[in-house]
Amino acid sequence: MADMLIPMRTIDWDYTNNTIIMIDQTLLPREKRVIECRTIDSLCEAIKSLRVRGAPALGAAGGFGVALAAHISNATTLAGITHELETAGKTISATRPTAVNLSWGVNRVIGVIEEAKNTREARMFALDEARLIADEDVAKNRQLGEHGEKLLEDGDTVMTHCNAGKMACVDRGTALGVIRSAVEHGKDIKVISCETRPLNQGSRITAWELMEDKIPVTLITDSMSGHVMRKGMVDKVIVGADRITQDAVFNKIGTYTHSVIAKEHGIPFYVAAPVSTFDFEQFEEDIEIELRSPDELRFFGNYQIAPLEVDVYNPAFDATPMENVSALITENGVYYPPFLLDEVKIKS
Amino acid sequence: MADMLIPMRTIDWDYTNNTIIMIDQTLLPREKRVIECRTIDSLCEAIKSLRVRGAPALGAAGGFGVALAAHISNATTLAGITHELETAGKTISATRPTAVNLSWGVNRVIGVIEEAKNTREARMFALDEARLIADEDVAKNRQLGEHGEKLLEDGDTVMTHCNAGKMACVDRGTALGVIRSAVEHGKDIKVISCETRPLNQGSRITAWELMEDKIPVTLITDSMSGHVMRKGMVDKVIVGADRITQDAVFNKIGTYTHSVIAKEHGIPFYVAAPVSTFDFEQFEEDIEIELRSPDELRFFGNYQIAPLEVDVYNPAFDATPMENVSALITENGVYYPPFLLDEVKIKS
Repeated sequence: MADMLIPMRTIDWDYTNNTIIMIDQTLLPREKRVIECRTIDSLCEAIKSLRVRGAPALGAAGGFGVALAAHISNATTLAGITHELETAGKTISATRPTAVNLSWGVNRVIGVIEEAKNTREARMFALDEARLIADEDVAKNRQLGEHGEKLLEDGDTVMTHCNAGKMACVDRGTALGVIRSAVEHGKDIKVISCETRPLNQGSRITAWELMEDKIPVTLITDSMSGHVMRKGMVDKVIVGADRITQDAVFNKIGTYTHSVIAKEHGIPFYVAAPVSTFDFEQFEEDIEIELRSPDELRFFGNYQIAPLEVDVYNPAFDATPMENVSALITENGVYYPPFLLDEVKIKS
Repeated sequence: MADMLIPMRTIDWDYTNNTIIMIDQTLLPREKRVIECRTIDSLCEAIKSLRVRGAPALGAAGGFGVALAAHISNATTLAGITHELETAGKTISATRPTAVNLSWGVNRVIGVIEEAKNTREARMFALDEARLIADEDVAKNRQLGEHGEKLLEDGDTVMTHCNAGKMACVDRGTALGVIRSAVEHGKDIKVISCETRPLNQGSRITAWELMEDKIPVTLITDSMSGHVMRKGMVDKVIVGADRITQDAVFNKIGTYTHSVIAKEHGIPFYVAAPVSTFDFEQFEEDIEIELRSPDELRFFGNYQIAPLEVDVYNPAFDATPMENVSALITENGVYYPPFLLDEVKIKS
């Protein structure tokens, strides 16, 4: 792992050295360092340590991981290389077993090996497929951004929560992708970023991303959303989503609170997410919300901010009922209430 | 300043050593240390460093400061001791010039010296008056608590924001005073404490206070208030107030957001504050909200959590319009909408 120039994407393949390169998100915003993974072990360490995170970015990480395993394999037979890739794939997928996209990326790349006639083709096909996963992610976010940017007007101030940006994807992002597209269309857009407790993805990552792109951003605490909306400082809210069921949007804890405040003040509340986020079969009541460590609220780094033994309730996500959502922005288009998810499904 | 046992009150007079003793709030919750101020300099340092904070507690600090100046004075004439107390009073008041209660406490104690016939009486009267300020504060909070506790039912879970507790007053507190009274009446009350960004008074002080009193408390991030109210986990909300105008309650930033969420879910939203908090002459538009340092959102202690140059909006307070308030709890009784502040005024 060596210091390098910032690449365009969150995670990418370096054709010069045939390695995986990524921005180390754990160092943001204090340091912008690109790290290089030359082995499956170093990739697994990067995933476990959240140096790369976000569902779409992890899909690409899984794909590139199998491509890396193919590149460094010494196998001389197709059966040999296939066996090595399957072993590497299992190791990679096991780093974050609940991250569906990670194993999806791994399996998609392993799947193309079947068509290879020799080990050289296996290496080539694996890398091509991994690149395709990354490219498709960028293309989808770009389409989503183009659809969504039509909802923004020149001069708008957009509030967002958590990081639904480039650093959660391969590039551009979902909520931030919409903002990037609007800016590319010449619109003057300002962003208010909620810091997003307890892990501060809003202050650490979203604020950093937007400053890198020279898009004006102002940081607030999550609790200020009511105050800024009441003061007329927000024109639209755009957030991402972790899962969208028939009746609710699951996203970073705090999203629901913002949706109620937006409704109170008649401010549009938009959710930007690729079709892969939609869970067409399930309802809110079917989904269990992950409870995270109490220490996330007891410490900041090593700094103690609450009694060590205090009880903590720390759900990772909340559910925003569809009636609080003004529009769903996807790569297939923008959907308005009443949301008939079958329409999204058929088109996808 | 030496380690001692925890006294009952936030700030008090130690008759054994004739010094001011207080809980050092800057060390909470990591360490519960009582410090002793033997000189005006050490008291001023404690006030400046926020070792003691909160409007009512500062009133007592000002009063005890003048009593301390009287105690350590070597003056042999009434004119001499009066001059010394006035000098000490100015020094104390200057430590936090915008804290109205501080100079109010100073001046109230200096005022009683006029009735003294000699320096011995001056010392005695000063200390008696300082004690009276502290006792009155405790008595007011106790009355307020007794009125307010009638609003709580056995088994209630009460959400609160920031610290409107013992550590902001001499003892008991306003919002937390209501909860303490309900518990003393045998009611089983649980508390949900919002951590209260950016300075975390909810996690550092409120959670600690309640744990000291063995009142069950669960810590959440501010953004979770929507989620916990939607899930039916909150029966009532009680907050304190920094200033109450004809049309709005000014309190710690985030209070307004919670009030909207409470209204959305039909949950009573109570404000507990002594009559001295009411500003009968002014309206929301007359009040300028203090903007605090951007670094409060860029750093946690020394730990950087946002880009160094990021723009930050950091108002200390927000305004909750009266229509979001279900009742005002004061030492004179409980007031319901429509709030006719003249009624509070006449009774006070």
